[in-house]
Amino acid sequence: MPADTPADLYGPDNLPYGVFTTADAPERRRIGVRLGDTVLDLGAAAAALGSPHAELLSAPTLNPLLAAGRAVWTAVRTELRTWLREGRAELTAVPLADVTLHLPFEVADYVDFYASEHHATNVGKMFRPDSEPLTPNWKHLPIGYHGRAGTVVVSGTPVVRPQGQRRTPDGPVFGPSQRLDIEAEVGFVVGAPSRLGEPVPQSAFRDHVFGVCLVNDWSARDVQAWEYVPLGPFLGKSFATSVSAWITPLEALDAARVAPPERTHPLLDYLKDDADDPAGFDVRITVTLNGQVISEPPFSAMYWTAAQQLAHMTVNGASLRTGDLFASGTVSGPEKHQRGCLLELTWSGENPLELPDGTRSFLEDGDEVVLTAWAPGPDGGRVGLGEVAGRVVKS
Amino acid sequence: MPADTPADLYGPDNLPYGVFTTADAPERRRIGVRLGDTVLDLGAAAAALGSPHAELLSAPTLNPLLAAGRAVWTAVRTELRTWLREGRAELTAVPLADVTLHLPFEVADYVDFYASEHHATNVGKMFRPDSEPLTPNWKHLPIGYHGRAGTVVVSGTPVVRPQGQRRTPDGPVFGPSQRLDIEAEVGFVVGAPSRLGEPVPQSAFRDHVFGVCLVNDWSARDVQAWEYVPLGPFLGKSFATSVSAWITPLEALDAARVAPPERTHPLLDYLKDDADDPAGFDVRITVTLNGQVISEPPFSAMYWTAAQQLAHMTVNGASLRTGDLFASGTVSGPEKHQRGCLLELTWSGENPLELPDGTRSFLEDGDEVVLTAWAPGPDGGRVGLGEVAGRVVKS
Repeated sequence: MPADTPADLYGPDNLPYGVFTTADAPERRRIGVRLGDTVLDLGAAAAALGSPHAELLSAPTLNPLLAAGRAVWTAVRTELRTWLREGRAELTAVPLADVTLHLPFEVADYVDFYASEHHATNVGKMFRPDSEPLTPNWKHLPIGYHGRAGTVVVSGTPVVRPQGQRRTPDGPVFGPSQRLDIEAEVGFVVGAPSRLGEPVPQSAFRDHVFGVCLVNDWSARDVQAWEYVPLGPFLGKSFATSVSAWITPLEALDAARVAPPERTHPLLDYLKDDADDPAGFDVRITVTLNGQVISEPPFSAMYWTAAQQLAHMTVNGASLRTGDLFASGTVSGPEKHQRGCLLELTWSGENPLELPDGTRSFLEDGDEVVLTAWAPGPDGGRVGLGEVAGRVVKS
Repeated sequence: MPADTPADLYGPDNLPYGVFTTADAPERRRIGVRLGDTVLDLGAAAAALGSPHAELLSAPTLNPLLAAGRAVWTAVRTELRTWLREGRAELTAVPLADVTLHLPFEVADYVDFYASEHHATNVGKMFRPDSEPLTPNWKHLPIGYHGRAGTVVVSGTPVVRPQGQRRTPDGPVFGPSQRLDIEAEVGFVVGAPSRLGEPVPQSAFRDHVFGVCLVNDWSARDVQAWEYVPLGPFLGKSFATSVSAWITPLEALDAARVAPPERTHPLLDYLKDDADDPAGFDVRITVTLNGQVISEPPFSAMYWTAAQQLAHMTVNGASLRTGDLFASGTVSGPEKHQRGCLLELTWSGENPLELPDGTRSFLEDGDEVVLTAWAPGPDGGRVGLGEVAGRVVKS
């Protein structure tokens, strides 16, 4: 199959939002929309064309747009598509190669789930070989934990290899992680907040969630394995989490909606699937390491949907804030070439990957990982997500 | 011993910072300092007296002051103490009873540690009766995890009993938590940020940490017990975390510094104690339930210090942001009446507390919990911390 061009993946049915600067005004962050290999200056167009949303589109982050809620999200997208159709000259396009992209929103809370049955099963076999791979709760609730919002970084940010404690037969030692890994994930960005004490049901998913990004949840497996009992991952994850510079609005993924996998256990009411409103997304991820494709994880294989995660995350009354980010957990499919992290791909280093520049069990300094993805769009087209790129730097 | 008066506990050697409004200007949040049973309007005084810090003291939160760094923290405190000594009329005092207190800073990331050996041992015995109570890592690193920053609330905020899943012999069921608990903790508020990839050593603790608050980390034990393997606490904690309205600057606790307990295991270099700079704090907490004292946890008994927690939290290169909050974990001492949560005080409900209004294993709707604390001040005086109050509301 021929590679998709930027024009195919970032056409008028996609229109993801980001924040950019140009060399002549490096301090002036602006909201842009990707079209092909250009960036449309949305704030400037909105002002020139007298849009009622000009003020929130002239902000230096997406947060005011996120906070404005679903009706405004739809109105802005409709406006923009109209301007494109009419070929408005006010919609200036800057070549993508000429801009610097920034973290597009201020992250409020960051939650990471664990929603792939294939991933959780594989990790369980490796980390807890004497137990059932899936813990007894796994099929009853979408397991998740809070991560560090302050170290969410935009695609392209170098990732310094973390130092930390790892276990040896002679006790813990300190040094650079020797098992630095990736996790290919899909992230969901909350726009409209909710009130403390008021759960958000699955049916309100589209009222609260603005859009989707790709996430690389870098993980130091040796640090994680030593620290994570009993309170979960901490320093093994908190050094960096990379997100794509582009947030694809949910509306662009309407054609990608699919039913989640068949349920093997009955679900409590607040987690029940709505057969008339399929909550899975057919997003197909590609992971490259130094330019070589090492995995193609299918997001459609995820057991728990983002709507279920949202409902679960708030069922205890926890409130949502504009800028909350929740990620799916590693996306792994049933096949070996669909596993979304090196831990699984190399089976904890037992079966290293063969790459043109040598074998890899875990990441080496200088390695670059890039995640890209696409989803079915309307009329047989494709909607591109991504990319999330990051290079490992020696610590 | 006679009860300490507000004048004793909140004298000129304490001077904690908060944010208040008055009834005549309920939208105008102002920075105040507590003195006795009054609130000094610090922003107004700074402006009237031509302070170089007037601008950051006129902010609606403490964040600009926090971000300004240690030299400014010291200068502002010195200025204020001078104005008090000189009896400056510009320093207007509003009765504490006439103000509304607000969350004093915008919480960036919230981390909760697990630093009491007594608490961790007791919980281990109850949650994992077939294993050693302390996990093998416990004496080698301060175990912690990220909590939900968006549900940190100020003292006085009602706490809606969370709903959630709990385990039964017939599988999980959904409903209001039946084991709602408190955790008495001490929190540390980060002022000066750090850069991604650059660990913060223990020796820089006072350059980054602005001050101290009290924390009640409300916990739904039934939700937590079912969800927490393998990725740690999530909904069992994320519904609410209450903090005191007053942040006591570290300088006010100089006389309270004490050495931590003797170490039973060798520590890696970045966690080694500095015998010349004791990093423990002799803070004495009192927990009341509906007005009855139920526990008096001693913070001096904590195995891990806040300086060690800061060094550990950043040793992997994770950055600090202004407004980061990290809490100690439940403060429990060696004695039964020093245990900082109901789980321990009632031994998981086996030995309910006898209160004037009946027995309690866990919290009932309408129960009010109040944490207060004091620490030794200069010249034999006392420095008050707190309070953190919260009443349980039916969900």
